[in-house]
Amino acid sequence: MKKLVLLYGVFILAFLIIIASFFRPSQLDSWHNVDGGLRGDIGEQYVMVTFQSGIDYWKPVLKGFEDAAEALGVSVDYRGSTEYDVQEQMTVLEQVIARKPAGIALSAMEPTALTASINKAVEAGIPVVLFDSGAEDSKAYSFLGTDNYNAGATAAHEFARLLGNAGKVAVITLPNQLNHQERVNGFQETIRREYPKMQVLEIKDGKGDVVVSREAAREVMRDHPDLRGIFVTEAVGGVGVGEAIVQQERLGQVKIISFDTDKGTLDMIKDGIISATLAQGTWNMGYWSLQFLFHLHHELAPESAGAAGKQRMLPPNVDTGVTVVTRANVDDYYAK
Amino acid sequence: MKKLVLLYGVFILAFLIIIASFFRPSQLDSWHNVDGGLRGDIGEQYVMVTFQSGIDYWKPVLKGFEDAAEALGVSVDYRGSTEYDVQEQMTVLEQVIARKPAGIALSAMEPTALTASINKAVEAGIPVVLFDSGAEDSKAYSFLGTDNYNAGATAAHEFARLLGNAGKVAVITLPNQLNHQERVNGFQETIRREYPKMQVLEIKDGKGDVVVSREAAREVMRDHPDLRGIFVTEAVGGVGVGEAIVQQERLGQVKIISFDTDKGTLDMIKDGIISATLAQGTWNMGYWSLQFLFHLHHELAPESAGAAGKQRMLPPNVDTGVTVVTRANVDDYYAK
Repeated sequence: MKKLVLLYGVFILAFLIIIASFFRPSQLDSWHNVDGGLRGDIGEQYVMVTFQSGIDYWKPVLKGFEDAAEALGVSVDYRGSTEYDVQEQMTVLEQVIARKPAGIALSAMEPTALTASINKAVEAGIPVVLFDSGAEDSKAYSFLGTDNYNAGATAAHEFARLLGNAGKVAVITLPNQLNHQERVNGFQETIRREYPKMQVLEIKDGKGDVVVSREAAREVMRDHPDLRGIFVTEAVGGVGVGEAIVQQERLGQVKIISFDTDKGTLDMIKDGIISATLAQGTWNMGYWSLQFLFHLHHELAPESAGAAGKQRMLPPNVDTGVTVVTRANVDDYYAK
Repeated sequence: MKKLVLLYGVFILAFLIIIASFFRPSQLDSWHNVDGGLRGDIGEQYVMVTFQSGIDYWKPVLKGFEDAAEALGVSVDYRGSTEYDVQEQMTVLEQVIARKPAGIALSAMEPTALTASINKAVEAGIPVVLFDSGAEDSKAYSFLGTDNYNAGATAAHEFARLLGNAGKVAVITLPNQLNHQERVNGFQETIRREYPKMQVLEIKDGKGDVVVSREAAREVMRDHPDLRGIFVTEAVGGVGVGEAIVQQERLGQVKIISFDTDKGTLDMIKDGIISATLAQGTWNMGYWSLQFLFHLHHELAPESAGAAGKQRMLPPNVDTGVTVVTRANVDDYYAK
């Protein structure tokens, strides 16, 4: 009987110790320390908004957004206009704002049309960041996307590597579009500055069209028999240039660097027609967009920042970078 | 006796339930979910390395670094050369590498001298990011610092606001230093493109010296009686320009925008001599450097990234931004 009472006492003590430690888990294990660690609430919902929401291009962005949400213990939703239609995107954005989410990551189809809606959200206390396509004069806290000048510079370095730092190259681009102009500037200026034995002979308009780009490639190969490479600043034209090189039997003599990772481009890399393409940092865009929104929602600004805290806690511009895709790593880039 | 045995049984049951729930805390409270949330180990040490390690400029960077460490439950250390001496900085960096920390955030005094050490660290599996001053051809994963072109554009917008979008301005700068050239380019091109009633009359060399800058300001005011503003791209010269304007009794007629937040500059803002200065995003540099190192150390890369994971999980370039400091918010910027 005495033994039983003793055992009884021991159990009560153990029970109390466990109850106590359960309510103060930080003293047992730093992983249970609720004061340290970045973690939200599963009821916190962050929304990613795009246009042409069904295309493959957004998939790795959404994956990054979801990965960050999992890491931080919060929820996400994905919305967008199904068509390439700015009115439809505005309607979708307004519906999302009306639900008062914890934050919105938006790729703006057009740089000005959505500014009023973005500003309305920010003024209502809903954090907004922009990714991939910005809205420069809006009140969004940050823009995360490819720095196109730097991407062009990467293409220049990759051509130098492919051609042993010497040789004549051409560019096929969309000369009237700012992001493509920046790619070409970065490419040209890097070659001029760093590779004196290389030369950019011509810059042609491929109109983002497979046939036009194919013809432009034919012409430039005809006019310059010593051409060693073509940089195509967008994917559709890249496939056209690949076709021209196969048809003209210049495979191996004229190398191609293209842009983005559409299936047609990846297939031509596998077949050795396109030497390399530049994959945009789409996962980065999604992952760090959610991180930034999380920091805004939880107001994790430095105390010293005063009233300007939210402005001062986030980088206003993030170059999410490009990676060079070649035959060696092409399999990692097919949509899963 | 039976009662006691029953009670005994109840306690054992309660004990087992609590033990069970303790090992699966995620089902009780999402805050205890060890699978969610970003948190490291207090034994994980990240090191920030600078040069002239005692100057005020680094204080908010270190504060950001420490704030991120606190948020993530990890430790930091701060090292640097005491002098403006690249050999000393290299020695400090080598000592830090030898201790195999979880990650290193480095501001490189010189863009090439430290590259071999940086690469050695990265090859040994120690993540390195650069902040404020980079080392472009090193294997560091990311650079976080002020985009000087964008900073110059911000100065242009602020002058437009101060002058009601019209008026003649001059620039006093360090014409031979790349970061200052970029500030001037951003300033000039923004005015040319967006403010047709504004004009940049002259760009003068202030040599980063208070006397030279004062004389340059005197000359430009003498040559252009209708001058409305001077943009000074560094803080020492800014104080000299302020002195010239006081001495020439042009206060209020000629407005100054300066750079950085040295005490002399802040005092002149308080006194109404300098209208605005641009504060660099130093807290951002430290905070996001630590976040990036944490992600590298824990290899939080997307599964899809394959071998290039570490390259693909971080933005390679981050513009940590500037904020405009005026009399209204100058008190937030004095070193604490």
